[in-house]
Amino acid sequence: MNLIPIKRALLSVSDKTNLIPLAQTLVQMGCEIISTGGTRKQLDEAGISSIEISTVTGNPEAFGGRMKTISFHIESALLFDRKKDAQEAMDLGIAPIDLVVCNLYPFKKVLEQGGSFEELIENIDIGGPTMIRAAAKNFKYVTVLVDPTDYPSFIEESKSNAAVSLPFRQKMMAKAFNHCADYDAMIAVEMDKSLGQHSVRLAFDQGMSLRYGENSHQKAWFFREKKDTNSLFDFEILHGKELSFNNIMDINSALEALKGLDNSACSVVKHNNPCGLASGENQKDIIAYAWGGDSISAFGSIIAFNRPLELETAKFFQLDHENKSMRKFIEVIIAPAFSPEALTYLQQHKNLRIIRFNGQQLNQPLDYRFLNGSLLVQDTDQILMQDAKSVTGQNFDLDAHQDLVRFGLSAIRAIKSNSIVLVRRINNHLQLLGMGAGQPNRLIATKLAIDKAKENLKDLSEEERKEQLSAAVMVSDAFFPFEDNVELAAAEGIRNIVQPGGSIRDPQIIETCNRYQIAMIFTGIRHFKH
Amino acid sequence: MNLIPIKRALLSVSDKTNLIPLAQTLVQMGCEIISTGGTRKQLDEAGISSIEISTVTGNPEAFGGRMKTISFHIESALLFDRKKDAQEAMDLGIAPIDLVVCNLYPFKKVLEQGGSFEELIENIDIGGPTMIRAAAKNFKYVTVLVDPTDYPSFIEESKSNAAVSLPFRQKMMAKAFNHCADYDAMIAVEMDKSLGQHSVRLAFDQGMSLRYGENSHQKAWFFREKKDTNSLFDFEILHGKELSFNNIMDINSALEALKGLDNSACSVVKHNNPCGLASGENQKDIIAYAWGGDSISAFGSIIAFNRPLELETAKFFQLDHENKSMRKFIEVIIAPAFSPEALTYLQQHKNLRIIRFNGQQLNQPLDYRFLNGSLLVQDTDQILMQDAKSVTGQNFDLDAHQDLVRFGLSAIRAIKSNSIVLVRRINNHLQLLGMGAGQPNRLIATKLAIDKAKENLKDLSEEERKEQLSAAVMVSDAFFPFEDNVELAAAEGIRNIVQPGGSIRDPQIIETCNRYQIAMIFTGIRHFKH
Repeated sequence: MNLIPIKRALLSVSDKTNLIPLAQTLVQMGCEIISTGGTRKQLDEAGISSIEISTVTGNPEAFGGRMKTISFHIESALLFDRKKDAQEAMDLGIAPIDLVVCNLYPFKKVLEQGGSFEELIENIDIGGPTMIRAAAKNFKYVTVLVDPTDYPSFIEESKSNAAVSLPFRQKMMAKAFNHCADYDAMIAVEMDKSLGQHSVRLAFDQGMSLRYGENSHQKAWFFREKKDTNSLFDFEILHGKELSFNNIMDINSALEALKGLDNSACSVVKHNNPCGLASGENQKDIIAYAWGGDSISAFGSIIAFNRPLELETAKFFQLDHENKSMRKFIEVIIAPAFSPEALTYLQQHKNLRIIRFNGQQLNQPLDYRFLNGSLLVQDTDQILMQDAKSVTGQNFDLDAHQDLVRFGLSAIRAIKSNSIVLVRRINNHLQLLGMGAGQPNRLIATKLAIDKAKENLKDLSEEERKEQLSAAVMVSDAFFPFEDNVELAAAEGIRNIVQPGGSIRDPQIIETCNRYQIAMIFTGIRHFKH
Repeated sequence: MNLIPIKRALLSVSDKTNLIPLAQTLVQMGCEIISTGGTRKQLDEAGISSIEISTVTGNPEAFGGRMKTISFHIESALLFDRKKDAQEAMDLGIAPIDLVVCNLYPFKKVLEQGGSFEELIENIDIGGPTMIRAAAKNFKYVTVLVDPTDYPSFIEESKSNAAVSLPFRQKMMAKAFNHCADYDAMIAVEMDKSLGQHSVRLAFDQGMSLRYGENSHQKAWFFREKKDTNSLFDFEILHGKELSFNNIMDINSALEALKGLDNSACSVVKHNNPCGLASGENQKDIIAYAWGGDSISAFGSIIAFNRPLELETAKFFQLDHENKSMRKFIEVIIAPAFSPEALTYLQQHKNLRIIRFNGQQLNQPLDYRFLNGSLLVQDTDQILMQDAKSVTGQNFDLDAHQDLVRFGLSAIRAIKSNSIVLVRRINNHLQLLGMGAGQPNRLIATKLAIDKAKENLKDLSEEERKEQLSAAVMVSDAFFPFEDNVELAAAEGIRNIVQPGGSIRDPQIIETCNRYQIAMIFTGIRHFKH
């Protein structure tokens, strides 16, 4: 019962793509074609003769097309068991239909074109899903095609075998049920909406098992969101060990940190937070500055670039250094492309995962958080600042520091709250000089950022260090609740602060800045991230 | 066209719950009943006469029941437009069917009972979805019931109006499309599985708009996972301001921190990390110890309990203190119940969100992370330790400290990585004494935990402080990569360490512990959380 020749086919398609070549193949196979209204017209025009469906059903097309295919005859022809029910079918005058080619009324298209509720209702297909589901249920004998992109493989399959194999039929069956599930998911959400009810249905496929989850006692899987056109899932693994659950989370975070940076840039992520970030013209310098943001944590990190990776950049990792301790081992490197030389160089590191992916394509409008049987959905955080203004006596020259401020805000947006970063300009590049992440108390985040910055500047003279800190910009993800953050910054010689503003203590905080001649801008936009 | 009397009904149900009272009502209304095989048998037994469906379709039940309802007559009777198509229907001899009562072959039940693939296929309903979807499409005229729990409201609706209203029909229509979408989602996933393909379909409903997302420029919504039986979504808001997106995230984190604690316990969460946690017998002391874990960050925090809240505990917040600065303002308080006195007391704080929810009911087996068009799924982290063993010369007496170790591991499991906690025993209670969260460098997490612990002990004498630190247990979410963490702990007088083990430098780390006479256990289970 494996190979089934296609002797009788039913064609009823809303999307006519690739219809004619398929029908021609069926004719060549000696297959009889049954078809409905619009489909039949197209076949006629191509000189392909077919049987009008009403001839088979014994019923007319009725009610403005609402009734065309649904009938005892058609669904029986699809559903009866070719072995067990053969005699019964013969007695009832039912001849088998071996192939259904059908896709559904364009509910989605009408929705996207802003069709009225009545138009939407009219575009809910009833006969189509019935045929598709009947054929799919009886896939042991029947082939169902719901997607024009499958016609070529059907043609190949049926031509080479003069019949269709069970594995092919089963594959098309699963696709058919998915097609109907997607269709009804879309309808269900819209019908809820018509009642003022919000619902969400999400479908993910291409699932792969991962070695384990965040920890080895947790099983894990990775899926692609079906509808998504720019999924993170689509990254290409060019080299290296299997990716872990945590690698994938960190890859996402590393790409998130590069969002909003137009120049060539690099992010260094450890435990889901960027601890290094740099941007500018020269990729070879950029990696050095990004790494320098936290050169201790950078070992074993995940590193992402937004430009094709060059050999000179790759050499920064010194993977061929004879002294192993001089080699900079990292877990994952991501770039939109790799020069052949850079790739060859990086491949020296056997375990290093090399990922080709353009993070700039990630532009998902929504962010989802799953919490124990519930779901939070929100717009992604896409606005860095709005109506930013200097609020201190000492003017914050936003025009002159636009790039550095945007750079700092890009960093803070990607770091877990409460967070503080210090960013600076160095040799025409921008660098994350220190960051404090994930603290319940903002003051500790400030302290962490400053401590890291000072550590990064430890080889400078006292004077140079002060100069660097006074030129740096301190960025806070949310407003300061008290003056203590400003006082701590002032004590360390910080002279420029960027924060959203919005505290009831803003007047006191501005006053404190003025006392220390600190320039501060309010950006108007908070960047909490948890 | 609003009220439609039910003159002719089609009953064809797999789940016979509440069938008879519904049918009796229909009979009383003078409604004609059409029914199929098993449904008809039940009606007969209850003395309710009905018309065998084959009388209407003009076709026999065929192919072992695969063909029963699908026919030109039945679907026409459901689908024709009662106004536009009236004459056509009459010409074709089609009488309207005003009500469809149908639920589907028990695919889910067969799946849960471990049915074979063939049994699953046989339990894919074809006729049912066709009738349901046809009736739903024509909801302007037709009522469809897919859920026995809706029969009582149908009875009420039809009795009081002697007909069914459009709003009711529309509500049932949306439910019907959801029913079919859920059904086909389940089938699609199983059919994928039959091909060795992993897919996931998730459905969420009861969506509500939130004021905004993590930040005010982000729109946001909150949904319930449809299938979930213990959803976080089901918490009850007893009092207070509207919940924010961040509140909901923090509520979840606060409840997560209590998981695995059998005694009465309390967690204090700020920015998604527990900064306070305590457990023991006396709730009044527990809140004080939990608050004391970080009494600065605790202001404006989210606080959860796993026992009914008592008045004496509520009084800890001093909400009636005449000196406003002595009142302990928090954002949200969650408990499985509140004594009437405690509730009255807490309600003095106008904005305080008071949430009734039993966090112990959260036992979701899977955790989902959405990443830009992809999905990571993993088992939830349910194992605190496995084959834990003392690995140092100084024996770690796990039997004596089982409760404290489990407490520390519960805390660390709920804190963002890299994380370190210090926990201690105090007056028969267990307390989180200090924590370091979300650090790219573990050493900084250790330093943060120790600094916080020392701050919390600052009023003690030097000797007492040392005593406390030497009796405390330091817990790490993952292994130590180097000896520096142990050295830092040793320098501060820490004498007990709990960590999973698994580093290639474990021998050196054990040796370092031995040098400082630190007792250490390896728990075998890492607790990364990002």
